Amino acid sequence: MRTLIRNVTAITLDDEDRILPNVDIAIEDARIVDIGSDPVFPRSRVYTTAEVIDGRDMVALPAFFNAHTHAAMTLERGWAEDLPFERWLDEKIWVAESALEEEDVYWGAALACCEMLRAGVVGFADHYFWMDQTARAVEESGMKALLAWCHFGIGTEHELGGKTLEETVAFAERWKGAAKGRIRTTMGPHSTYMDPPEVLRRFAEEARRVGVGAHFHLSESHAQVERSIERHGETPVALAGSLGLLDLPEPTLVAHCNVATDDDLALLADKGTWVAHTPKTYQKLAMEMPPVARMLARGVKLALGTDGPASNSDLNMLEVMRAMGLAQKDAQKDSEAMPRTQLLRLATQAPAAAMGFAESGVLAPGRPADVILIDTTAAHWIPRHDLAAGVVYTAHPGDVAFVWCDGKLLYRRGQYQTLDVERIRYEAERRAFRMVGKPMRQVRAYRA
Amino acid sequence: MRTLIRNVTAITLDDEDRILPNVDIAIEDARIVDIGSDPVFPRSRVYTTAEVIDGRDMVALPAFFNAHTHAAMTLERGWAEDLPFERWLDEKIWVAESALEEEDVYWGAALACCEMLRAGVVGFADHYFWMDQTARAVEESGMKALLAWCHFGIGTEHELGGKTLEETVAFAERWKGAAKGRIRTTMGPHSTYMDPPEVLRRFAEEARRVGVGAHFHLSESHAQVERSIERHGETPVALAGSLGLLDLPEPTLVAHCNVATDDDLALLADKGTWVAHTPKTYQKLAMEMPPVARMLARGVKLALGTDGPASNSDLNMLEVMRAMGLAQKDAQKDSEAMPRTQLLRLATQAPAAAMGFAESGVLAPGRPADVILIDTTAAHWIPRHDLAAGVVYTAHPGDVAFVWCDGKLLYRRGQYQTLDVERIRYEAERRAFRMVGKPMRQVRAYRA
Repeated sequence: MRTLIRNVTAITLDDEDRILPNVDIAIEDARIVDIGSDPVFPRSRVYTTAEVIDGRDMVALPAFFNAHTHAAMTLERGWAEDLPFERWLDEKIWVAESALEEEDVYWGAALACCEMLRAGVVGFADHYFWMDQTARAVEESGMKALLAWCHFGIGTEHELGGKTLEETVAFAERWKGAAKGRIRTTMGPHSTYMDPPEVLRRFAEEARRVGVGAHFHLSESHAQVERSIERHGETPVALAGSLGLLDLPEPTLVAHCNVATDDDLALLADKGTWVAHTPKTYQKLAMEMPPVARMLARGVKLALGTDGPASNSDLNMLEVMRAMGLAQKDAQKDSEAMPRTQLLRLATQAPAAAMGFAESGVLAPGRPADVILIDTTAAHWIPRHDLAAGVVYTAHPGDVAFVWCDGKLLYRRGQYQTLDVERIRYEAERRAFRMVGKPMRQVRAYRA
Repeated sequence: MRTLIRNVTAITLDDEDRILPNVDIAIEDARIVDIGSDPVFPRSRVYTTAEVIDGRDMVALPAFFNAHTHAAMTLERGWAEDLPFERWLDEKIWVAESALEEEDVYWGAALACCEMLRAGVVGFADHYFWMDQTARAVEESGMKALLAWCHFGIGTEHELGGKTLEETVAFAERWKGAAKGRIRTTMGPHSTYMDPPEVLRRFAEEARRVGVGAHFHLSESHAQVERSIERHGETPVALAGSLGLLDLPEPTLVAHCNVATDDDLALLADKGTWVAHTPKTYQKLAMEMPPVARMLARGVKLALGTDGPASNSDLNMLEVMRAMGLAQKDAQKDSEAMPRTQLLRLATQAPAAAMGFAESGVLAPGRPADVILIDTTAAHWIPRHDLAAGVVYTAHPGDVAFVWCDGKLLYRRGQYQTLDVERIRYEAERRAFRMVGKPMRQVRAYRA
């Protein structure tokens, strides 16, 4: 499988932040084999037999990764709007989820894959139930994912896809490295407040045995921190450290650390823990905004994500990147804060590394061919004084023209190469409406 | 000219906030003549000879208006990124503008029209130089506008299109009510800090004589407020009031009131002054965020805008509406703040009224046919639990499918009906690159 992208401007996100105008990018199988513009390019044998893509008026960029989501919650997009967090959860989300059936997760996740590909996202860290269904959607889509089967260790057992600890561990073993390594797995305790210490300690042991990391919610509010100190004598972050969850064979990825002491940050930095940052959700649900400036100053590793579409409304990393830049410039009252290439890294190589795909996120020979092309001809792109600023502050999913993952073309100017979007949106909407008791009215019939 | 939109869901933004599923909308000449779904619809004679548009899977909405921009500053989009305000202005914007020529304004404004139409915006309040050029672009595009020729009354005369007060007043008289009323004009002093009191008083007199309002910058920073009190003994808002600028025959529209005392707000509310709110620019340039909650509580009339594309990066009212909702829920720590239909009004009927197009912004019989259709079939729209939330929190310009202004179709699924977008983007980029001394490299030649 060979592809040659010609005459494109490449935002490489390499160590020197190079932007290369008018270069060719040669892809062979799953890797980028060459980038350049010299007269004998390409030096590899790709050229003669490759599919050639005209890259003029386009910018090539490492594909986006989404560090934290609940993909199948597309089914609850728009179902709970302008509500306080407790009513959002108790009166709407949990009510809808009480009608969730196993196969719904497949269609909800497949819909999420369609949405993400269209926005240039090739990988996502998912945390939900019935994860075999999500894994199936990822495998079929050609995307990459880090998958965790969410486990509630205390309280009423979540009826929907809630499994014993052993069963969620078995999922992680079953799918680990599947789809030629595109699927990675991790342990999925819900959080330090929904799983008791003995359960969390078991997860850390299992992670070491299976050779994976963990992905869970951490320190989301002042109330959670106070309760943790009351019950366990330490903050949620410190507790996660004490229980061994920050010392695993693969990355530990925690969402969201909205509230964190300096000691918490020192611990997270020291352990190399990845913190998923999902600013649109924080704003929409009026949650505490995490102390980003302090986090970065102390060396905490941040990676951008959307969170689930029931809170964030969508799965658009372009928007999340922009939201972080704007919110931080505003909060820090510093228009130089979060320069555009830093935001691009936070939405590409940072979440990729947080998910264990550490080689992705750079356009360079030898790297995985997780590449997107963004069309720059629409009016909102002109004049093209600064393409990186264009991606961060004006681009929309509709500008994304080509998406490759491991060298395979998954999306091309509105056409999905691996997914049947018409069937997926019909099935997903039908099931979503069933969950909330609505008739299927606004949808055209799917013509199979 | 008759159009019948069939089987559409209409977000009317009428007094009862009705959302009407599966209705037909009949348009005759510049007006909506009927909306309904009864069997004998339409009651008017439109039906038989109209162009019929299939509205299934689409949402109809009053078109957006942009309450404050400098359209031709598209030419400086992306030219000054991640900089402090002073360097942004002194080292970049004014340097580029020193090379601005009169005809550049036409092409920059035409590019802005292309961008806005594509995002469902049919009208904008513009404040810049060489405004005959902008008026020409508006007239040709079929859009609506409130145009002010900016006047600096003190300091070095702005070389570029800077005219005497009399000349800017003559512009307002020349174009008042042009293009069948689609073009309105207003007085354009720059601000209370760039024009001395005697000049501002003259503008108020001329506005009363010509029968128009005024549009200017007001109270953008603590420094401006302090300086005004020092020099004039009152805040900028109070000064504008004392000089008669808030008592004019047509609406006074002020941008941005980032800083305002309670007395300022009481005065603005009492006078019915419109305040243009451009949140993306405030965030991007780390300016004070205006006290929105206090403003709304005291009855100040707010209208959303983008500000110029050199600061805001684009002219996308969908994004500005979303940015305001997210920023306010966050700042007020209240996820119920700024409900979605309020945001829709702030981006449609509020800016329309602020510009003197008070009948626009509602889908109802008798109203101007300023209407857009948004396609809801892309993955990020599914499931369609809440179409208003979809418009506010997930829609992109790429979803905008049809745009009518005064009943005339201006944009249809990527095709501009009145503007030659290919020529405009070529000319605009060529001129923008000339202004900053860049070679014309990234652009395909325009093939006339």
